[in-house]
Amino acid sequence: MKIAVINPNTTAAMTRRIGEAAQAVAASGTQILARNPTTGPASIEGYVDEIYSVPGLLAEIRRAEADGAQGHVIACFDDTGLEAARCVANHPVVGIGEAAFHMASLLAGRFSVITTLHRSIAAIEQNLLKYGLERRCARVRAVEVAVLELEDPACDAAGRIADEITAALREDRAEAIVLGCAGMAAFAASLARQSGVPVLDGVGCAVKLIEGLQALGLNTSRAGGYQKPLPKIYAGF
Amino acid sequence: MKIAVINPNTTAAMTRRIGEAAQAVAASGTQILARNPTTGPASIEGYVDEIYSVPGLLAEIRRAEADGAQGHVIACFDDTGLEAARCVANHPVVGIGEAAFHMASLLAGRFSVITTLHRSIAAIEQNLLKYGLERRCARVRAVEVAVLELEDPACDAAGRIADEITAALREDRAEAIVLGCAGMAAFAASLARQSGVPVLDGVGCAVKLIEGLQALGLNTSRAGGYQKPLPKIYAGF
Amino acid sequence: MKIAVINPNTTAAMTRRIGEAAQAVAASGTQILARNPTTGPASIEGYVDEIYSVPGLLAEIRRAEADGAQGHVIACFDDTGLEAARCVANHPVVGIGEAAFHMASLLAGRFSVITTLHRSIAAIEQNLLKYGLERRCARVRAVEVAVLELEDPACDAAGRIADEITAALREDRAEAIVLGCAGMAAFAASLARQSGVPVLDGVGCAVKLIEGLQALGLNTSRAGGYQKPLPKIYAGF
Amino acid sequence: MKIAVINPNTTAAMTRRIGEAAQAVAASGTQILARNPTTGPASIEGYVDEIYSVPGLLAEIRRAEADGAQGHVIACFDDTGLEAARCVANHPVVGIGEAAFHMASLLAGRFSVITTLHRSIAAIEQNLLKYGLERRCARVRAVEVAVLELEDPACDAAGRIADEITAALREDRAEAIVLGCAGMAAFAASLARQSGVPVLDGVGCAVKLIEGLQALGLNTSRAGGYQKPLPKIYAGF
Amino acid sequence: MKIAVINPNTTAAMTRRIGEAAQAVAASGTQILARNPTTGPASIEGYVDEIYSVPGLLAEIRRAEADGAQGHVIACFDDTGLEAARCVANHPVVGIGEAAFHMASLLAGRFSVITTLHRSIAAIEQNLLKYGLERRCARVRAVEVAVLELEDPACDAAGRIADEITAALREDRAEAIVLGCAGMAAFAASLARQSGVPVLDGVGCAVKLIEGLQALGLNTSRAGGYQKPLPKIYAGF
Amino acid sequence: MKIAVINPNTTAAMTRRIGEAAQAVAASGTQILARNPTTGPASIEGYVDEIYSVPGLLAEIRRAEADGAQGHVIACFDDTGLEAARCVANHPVVGIGEAAFHMASLLAGRFSVITTLHRSIAAIEQNLLKYGLERRCARVRAVEVAVLELEDPACDAAGRIADEITAALREDRAEAIVLGCAGMAAFAASLARQSGVPVLDGVGCAVKLIEGLQALGLNTSRAGGYQKPLPKIYAGF
Repeated sequence: MKIAVINPNTTAAMTRRIGEAAQAVAASGTQILARNPTTGPASIEGYVDEIYSVPGLLAEIRRAEADGAQGHVIACFDDTGLEAARCVANHPVVGIGEAAFHMASLLAGRFSVITTLHRSIAAIEQNLLKYGLERRCARVRAVEVAVLELEDPACDAAGRIADEITAALREDRAEAIVLGCAGMAAFAASLARQSGVPVLDGVGCAVKLIEGLQALGLNTSRAGGYQKPLPKIYAGF
Repeated sequence: MKIAVINPNTTAAMTRRIGEAAQAVAASGTQILARNPTTGPASIEGYVDEIYSVPGLLAEIRRAEADGAQGHVIACFDDTGLEAARCVANHPVVGIGEAAFHMASLLAGRFSVITTLHRSIAAIEQNLLKYGLERRCARVRAVEVAVLELEDPACDAAGRIADEITAALREDRAEAIVLGCAGMAAFAASLARQSGVPVLDGVGCAVKLIEGLQALGLNTSRAGGYQKPLPKIYAGF
Repeated sequence: MKIAVINPNTTAAMTRRIGEAAQAVAASGTQILARNPTTGPASIEGYVDEIYSVPGLLAEIRRAEADGAQGHVIACFDDTGLEAARCVANHPVVGIGEAAFHMASLLAGRFSVITTLHRSIAAIEQNLLKYGLERRCARVRAVEVAVLELEDPACDAAGRIADEITAALREDRAEAIVLGCAGMAAFAASLARQSGVPVLDGVGCAVKLIEGLQALGLNTSRAGGYQKPLPKIYAGF
Repeated sequence: MKIAVINPNTTAAMTRRIGEAAQAVAASGTQILARNPTTGPASIEGYVDEIYSVPGLLAEIRRAEADGAQGHVIACFDDTGLEAARCVANHPVVGIGEAAFHMASLLAGRFSVITTLHRSIAAIEQNLLKYGLERRCARVRAVEVAVLELEDPACDAAGRIADEITAALREDRAEAIVLGCAGMAAFAASLARQSGVPVLDGVGCAVKLIEGLQALGLNTSRAGGYQKPLPKIYAGF
Repeated sequence: MKIAVINPNTTAAMTRRIGEAAQAVAASGTQILARNPTTGPASIEGYVDEIYSVPGLLAEIRRAEADGAQGHVIACFDDTGLEAARCVANHPVVGIGEAAFHMASLLAGRFSVITTLHRSIAAIEQNLLKYGLERRCARVRAVEVAVLELEDPACDAAGRIADEITAALREDRAEAIVLGCAGMAAFAASLARQSGVPVLDGVGCAVKLIEGLQALGLNTSRAGGYQKPLPKIYAGF
Repeated sequence: MKIAVINPNTTAAMTRRIGEAAQAVAASGTQILARNPTTGPASIEGYVDEIYSVPGLLAEIRRAEADGAQGHVIACFDDTGLEAARCVANHPVVGIGEAAFHMASLLAGRFSVITTLHRSIAAIEQNLLKYGLERRCARVRAVEVAVLELEDPACDAAGRIADEITAALREDRAEAIVLGCAGMAAFAASLARQSGVPVLDGVGCAVKLIEGLQALGLNTSRAGGYQKPLPKIYAGF
């Protein structure tokens, strides 16, 4: 089975790392198509960046299905464009934010999220409320490292995340940690070892959920808001 | 004061009617700039249409501010792109959905919403939850008349809405009605007379809220998710 | 249009200042009738004070309508007697607490409230829950300055409120501040300048909401709890 | 021990019947002081009636304590003036609405409330939310019989309540019934026999809760909103 | 009347103390049958201990009814096996956790719970949510003293609880304290004197609630989840 | 990898069918150990049955781990004993109820559950609340067919479920259906074809979630309520 893992920003290096993280956990028969749009922002940090990334994301979903993809992962922790993606895709779509929230709920009573920038907290909290898991989340924290600086040793992202985990365990009574950015996947294993609690990366979670839905023959419902879009012309797109 | 009332779809006739409804309730010193983008769908019915309308909406907000607008109304009941609009605008932004929900909360314990298509109910319910007013809303109902057919006498939109109002008063114990589409404004007055309960059109509500915020010297907070966007290039836009 | 702004306590000096704050933001055609009852307490600080203020408040609403008022503001942050006032009034009624909460919700994801005395926090929290906006409020704080001491320089109310704002921004992640007493209106502008976030005074918010409802031709629903009272004799009143 | 059971309306015949219902379930050592104010309305049906009943209610609480009462029941299902009563009383205060809701929660997963008039539903729902028990209540229903007509055979109140119970069991999936008016106590036993589910009268529930608090040596907390009122003059009272 | 107070653990000394606490607050006509199962754990600290205590608890309920008990108290703060106990018992059943939560709600807007071990917090929070009283509880705290060490002077349980009460009043804005273990009953009175706020022990609360239900002739509803169990063989029991 | 799929009732024929359903969707490298305890009830229908099934369930978990199982599915829709199982197991544990709820949340805005007996609805609703997904569930319905009669053609379980699905789509606005009993797995595919919406069987969902957690190297958190049980003797077990 082919699964499209779509990084909605335009940074190919990040897409490559996300693809590797996805392939590393995929089942032996799963081929990961790691893609990113060519339109939109280089990173998604706030509501405006989300807006300009989604048309490209939807195009990549269509393109991936033409290439045989039977499921899609939206590899941005804000679950950017998730509902629209469900409408256009012929196969299931899972966002890495929701994937991590649901998986964490199977392991712990409460989890805290650690994301990049303060400005992204509001959107994540809105998502938790929308999914119904807001009571399961003790707190959303930010390390104030920009998405594209996560790899920069000078920023010491791993160290800052570790500090926030320590605070989350002590202050939030968190029992598990959800990493709030697709670019943090590489840190998950060592942070889990250090902290002694589960540390979840949404990319891996989403891949396994898509594989699961696929194996079960399940697809998005068309009975409510995820109906196929009406045939329309989108002027300028 | 100039207020931009931006219909996020591309249908100029609808923009004109919305502009008239807005001007009719505006204060004597208020000039309504009724605008719509030239990109995106002709009507917004579901999550995908929302996606393609927002880049144009944001462009209109910027253009309106260049023209002197000191506040903005997003004239789509889904409050399409509301958060992103708050980030890019230098002045307050109010969506017609939230405007009607807040105003109805001042008049009635519970209200029901009557929108166009079944497929739009989910997004409206998500908004109610996001705003915190989900307990105030008894139910979201749909008349199954498309946005661009509201004016078509053959569809008898007014009659169908009246029937749903009757059902809402009896079955939902609604005390007020919120009309769930910018294109329904013209029906509000006669439906209120017929039903005996307040019937709210969001366009008018939003105009008065923007005038109010303006008079009070209040503007969007930049301390959380509505921070000004980081300087970025949006490839392809 | 005449709007009655009714301070439900008997302190005429406070009524005068509230009236000035109201007139300052009112539209050019709006005449503010600033009134207070002659019965009840000199300030409202807790549940018992509320009880003795409302009969006088309702009398003032009736008197103001006889004088031509077409809308009413209850100028006590507890929204004292709001539901009963809606029942007796022939025109819309807005409390300054709810007004500020709704307006703040248009500007910020989360706000904190800063009120006078600790004993008033519970009633404010109950109101937030009743309105549905409890998730929008990060915290209700008190400066422990009595209502009638807000003007006393020795109490340094402005300084204490500024300190609480600082704490609210840092500890509550508040994005806007709602001033929790009608007597704090004079501090709003300078606190906003100092803090850099919106600081809302409910008196101004309520005046603009009443003007808005009036312009839209909207009135309280009589279909639920706000029905006109049954004709009864109230012995002793 | 003396317990004051205060009917906040002025109808002495109703007070007498409430007192008998209270005495019937009281412990052998409990003396019920059934009282009503001489000011206020003859029955409480809606928000305005509540307002005019509370000053008299508070006076009766003070008078009953002077007569040795060591606990108080507010015998109106709206729990009229409950918070203020807690502030002025030196001993515990329980409302019959909250009493019935808490007791029903010990017997059933979900209950429905059956009250007198439609106009009273909103206040009851607000109370449920305030207490935190809104999820335990399946629905609040009204039989449209006025409080003072409950005893009038021509109104067949018992028959109408029985019909609503039938509907509640079938439509609301209610497992217990709470009678939503102090004047319905006489019907409880036969309705329970007919329906086969617990039917709770708040008067009895509240008496037993006050006896319980008294035996346990528990009293109202003064650490929050129920602080003793500040020493104030209430002009006109 | 006989009331069974069943300590679901096997520690007879604890049962004896619980029985004394229960008898101390019981009405003059009430005989307390303090019992414990002979199967299961010596103390209940976490989910697994709960599992092994309930079959014995249900056996004690049946035995107590054979001995004439007309009501049952489950004397473990987790309300272990409460729903199952309601199904098998012919008379009302109240858990000491729910008893204390409901009683505290009559005295204070918010309470904090102080329990033994951190590991027990999650189950208590789940119960609060199940009962609907989660908003009434400010926080659940643990003193990290094991159940069977509460009496050990070396552990200074009373001192540690007093410290947590101080923290709860200051940090949680708690207005009352609920002691979160049946073994803490002996500390309640002195802690209340020290702290100045109500301190509730669930054993006493539950006894008074059972006496109340009994006096009111109320019993568990059989219309929902508390139906009598179907006739089944439980292999191995 | 070996996954234990434990049917907590003692009916071996049902265990066999559950095991087949599990193996049918398992990955090629997954071996399903389908087990049931030898103690407890033949079917789980209500709170009491749950109690007597869990000690045997925990024994099977320990036995399965001795046999090499690296994950566990609790194959009863009530998620019987889930928290205790997480405490004793060294590997992840997923209940089929929670599995289906989380998976359905990835496919539909709202789902309805269709279970066997009315008496089981309350426990399922409590679980939804505990997991945080109560807003995602439109309604829990029962077909009134006992667990062990689901296979009996005379009961026409499939027909009755189909009727409830029709009702759920029309009355609840459900977009997906969750089958509320492990014994309904065989009906899922044809019901999905008939109804046109996703129909989820929890057994399959749970197997895929356990496979996913395993592939991701994730395990239950020991930081909160799921700590390993303290070393204790359980008398009689």
